[in-house]
Amino acid sequence: MDSFDLIVVGGGPGGYVAALRAAQLKMNVALVESTHLGGICLNWGCIPTKALLRASEINHLLHDLAPYGFAADNVRYDLETVVGRSRKVSQQLSRGVAHLLKKAKVKVFDGRAKLVGKAGERHKLVVTKDGRDVAEIAASNVILATGARARHFPGLEPDGELVWTYREAMVPKEMPKRLLVVGSGAIGVEFASFYRNMGAEVTIAEVADRILIAEDAEISGLAQKAFEAQGMKILTGAKVGPLKKADGTVSTVIETPKGRTELTVDRVILAVGIVGNVEDLGLEGTKVQVDRTHIVVDGLCRTGEKGIFAIGDVAGAPWLAHKASHEGVIVVDEIAGRNPHPLSPLNIPGCTYSRPQVASVGLTEDKAKATGRKLRIGKFPFVANGKALAMGEPDGMTKVIFDDETGELLGAHMIGAEVTEMIQGYVIARTSELTDAELRETVFPHPTISETMHEAVLASSGEALHI
Amino acid sequence: MDSFDLIVVGGGPGGYVAALRAAQLKMNVALVESTHLGGICLNWGCIPTKALLRASEINHLLHDLAPYGFAADNVRYDLETVVGRSRKVSQQLSRGVAHLLKKAKVKVFDGRAKLVGKAGERHKLVVTKDGRDVAEIAASNVILATGARARHFPGLEPDGELVWTYREAMVPKEMPKRLLVVGSGAIGVEFASFYRNMGAEVTIAEVADRILIAEDAEISGLAQKAFEAQGMKILTGAKVGPLKKADGTVSTVIETPKGRTELTVDRVILAVGIVGNVEDLGLEGTKVQVDRTHIVVDGLCRTGEKGIFAIGDVAGAPWLAHKASHEGVIVVDEIAGRNPHPLSPLNIPGCTYSRPQVASVGLTEDKAKATGRKLRIGKFPFVANGKALAMGEPDGMTKVIFDDETGELLGAHMIGAEVTEMIQGYVIARTSELTDAELRETVFPHPTISETMHEAVLASSGEALHI
Repeated sequence: MDSFDLIVVGGGPGGYVAALRAAQLKMNVALVESTHLGGICLNWGCIPTKALLRASEINHLLHDLAPYGFAADNVRYDLETVVGRSRKVSQQLSRGVAHLLKKAKVKVFDGRAKLVGKAGERHKLVVTKDGRDVAEIAASNVILATGARARHFPGLEPDGELVWTYREAMVPKEMPKRLLVVGSGAIGVEFASFYRNMGAEVTIAEVADRILIAEDAEISGLAQKAFEAQGMKILTGAKVGPLKKADGTVSTVIETPKGRTELTVDRVILAVGIVGNVEDLGLEGTKVQVDRTHIVVDGLCRTGEKGIFAIGDVAGAPWLAHKASHEGVIVVDEIAGRNPHPLSPLNIPGCTYSRPQVASVGLTEDKAKATGRKLRIGKFPFVANGKALAMGEPDGMTKVIFDDETGELLGAHMIGAEVTEMIQGYVIARTSELTDAELRETVFPHPTISETMHEAVLASSGEALHI
Repeated sequence: MDSFDLIVVGGGPGGYVAALRAAQLKMNVALVESTHLGGICLNWGCIPTKALLRASEINHLLHDLAPYGFAADNVRYDLETVVGRSRKVSQQLSRGVAHLLKKAKVKVFDGRAKLVGKAGERHKLVVTKDGRDVAEIAASNVILATGARARHFPGLEPDGELVWTYREAMVPKEMPKRLLVVGSGAIGVEFASFYRNMGAEVTIAEVADRILIAEDAEISGLAQKAFEAQGMKILTGAKVGPLKKADGTVSTVIETPKGRTELTVDRVILAVGIVGNVEDLGLEGTKVQVDRTHIVVDGLCRTGEKGIFAIGDVAGAPWLAHKASHEGVIVVDEIAGRNPHPLSPLNIPGCTYSRPQVASVGLTEDKAKATGRKLRIGKFPFVANGKALAMGEPDGMTKVIFDDETGELLGAHMIGAEVTEMIQGYVIARTSELTDAELRETVFPHPTISETMHEAVLASSGEALHI
């Protein structure tokens, strides 16, 4: 039996970052991964979708060249190359992770790990591959970072052919003419945006009363308007009936408060949430608690069992790679006695890379109101920003919510071009507990769209300059 | 004679923002502008060049579609439409400024203003238009915001035909085949980038030993490599001989430490710096001091004469619109007794919107070293960033310089895609005196190029995760 200082179960962004951090702190680390280093994020999530979305932005531009003074004939794309590029970027990064782990001397096991009791003070795990035990390993500290998988609902089962999860949606062999996307979180909306901008007819069905339900209601309304202006059909408050397949198409009936829609499409993408991979980890004999589909943890990712931690998707929402990797660092620093700060969910930004992009951090207006505090809200539209006009990107808004009494930045919400790269300024501000006073003092460079971040702050006290 | 609380001389970004701010604070304000509201920046600078650079990015992409899986035939542009779009954006924004001033009830005078003595406690000015006096106005406080103009050197005089300043370079009637750009500050480099990416052969001649001399030497080296890889010819330590015109071309001899280059081009763009518009302001009878080509001011933009302030380009470097407008707010707040903080030049970001983009704030490595402090420097290349790879933008770097003892962020330097929109995060950090500790704690969203901002901070203490 091999002993380690730390065993990490799962090689996604939370797991591999935890292992790398532990190696930096001179720990002897093992990492167990059954499928692909980098996890869903890097292989079937964040990264390959961004490459696809880049392609769909290009396709959009190629069909909108005239206002810029350009023209081209016979504009076309080869789907295999578009998808192939996306796969290549994923493979490059996955190989990069393998290289980083090797350089850091992390011992990587190919297989699944299961807790099987204790060996003295240490937790013991068995690694299996294709049903056979391949190793016994032990460590005082174990990090569970097994991620999550797509949620399924009765009547809405994926078949990998006509009814897709994110997995098939990322490697289309041909462009569907008509597409139904069920669910409008970041994943659903990004696929809808990709396929729409590549030329498909897209319908989104969302059970909630608005799309992008995690975002500020005003921003989600702007997103819906923008998507509809691009020709998407969006049904909210929607109950999707059973999917009926015939002749390579899928038919269903969607009920909304506004009525009943019969729909026939070529493909369906299911994006109705995810469930944590909590099974077959050997948690039964431990004090680790599972609440429905995630492992219960405290602010430092500790479970009920000493020496066992859980991070990332398996430890619950928000299901974001940067939350997982930051938790990975926190846990390792905690194990090493470095007293890390717990991670506040309100300091974790969220991004959706559709066209337009959406990015936010902290409380929405509704949630800020619910705290009972008096608010000071500022908004600034991209159409009043010089750089946005120069770029041909006049649709967007930056919105900030301050506590009127203390000036604390409670939330920041952005929609429009480049906002996913800009939101970090507000995240820095929130993390460091800056107020509107410090943001007012900051000189934002001209001409940039980031000036809307300054103007929105000024607008919160009625002092915006350019509107 | 009309009396005001405040008279602003010049309607560029410093001047009109000062006027708008004064109106917010209920002052009775006059603004005198001779040419165009919004000044050079908005009409012949920052804004129209960004529209042109957007076009050149599109042209580059259209000739590099294959890696993304796209193709198009007969790719072309209509220069008149490209330039026309740029002019339209400028006009839209200039009209916007006029509208804002009107809404704020700022009294706008069309003409030039000159100080002509005192009327009691007030400074008196005469406004002239086409050599004729059109108004006499007075105020206790006067802000001089007259901007700057292109510098000329003997032997390098613009003629508006073959030898251009920024003015003609912004409205080309046809694309020059061969172009010489003299000077490689932000303006020179942006024009070089525009014309090169639109298909011209471009040579840059720079008298200093490297391009973008205001930037960190390492960044400026990376920029030079990138431009050369795009086919630009760059001559540094270059002395440009007299320009000889014949048959619609310009010939010259350029001497560098490496030898002598004879060059014949179709057009020359002069971008060798600017000089403040300090003339004909009636400063002779005042205690306002002029040092060569700029008005001498203190940290709150006060001149030697009580009640007379100078902001923006006419008050000296850095010649940046956001410096001017921030100074406009500071001066008005000072006049209103609101005790604004003086503006530290080290908190003013600088941006160059070439391909690749360059952005920075604070001290360069050389200048940081010169302070005698012990430094902690971190760098992170875009090629190790997932989003950069997904976007097809692997060339770039983020570099941060900390005081090793205090953790103070002394400088931040970025080159690559989107960096002009990202630098604000570091500007917020510098303005609020954050240290590496706060930046380490910040969760940057994944996948974004802004993650390089986090990794560079981690790298400064040898703790980068993805390299």
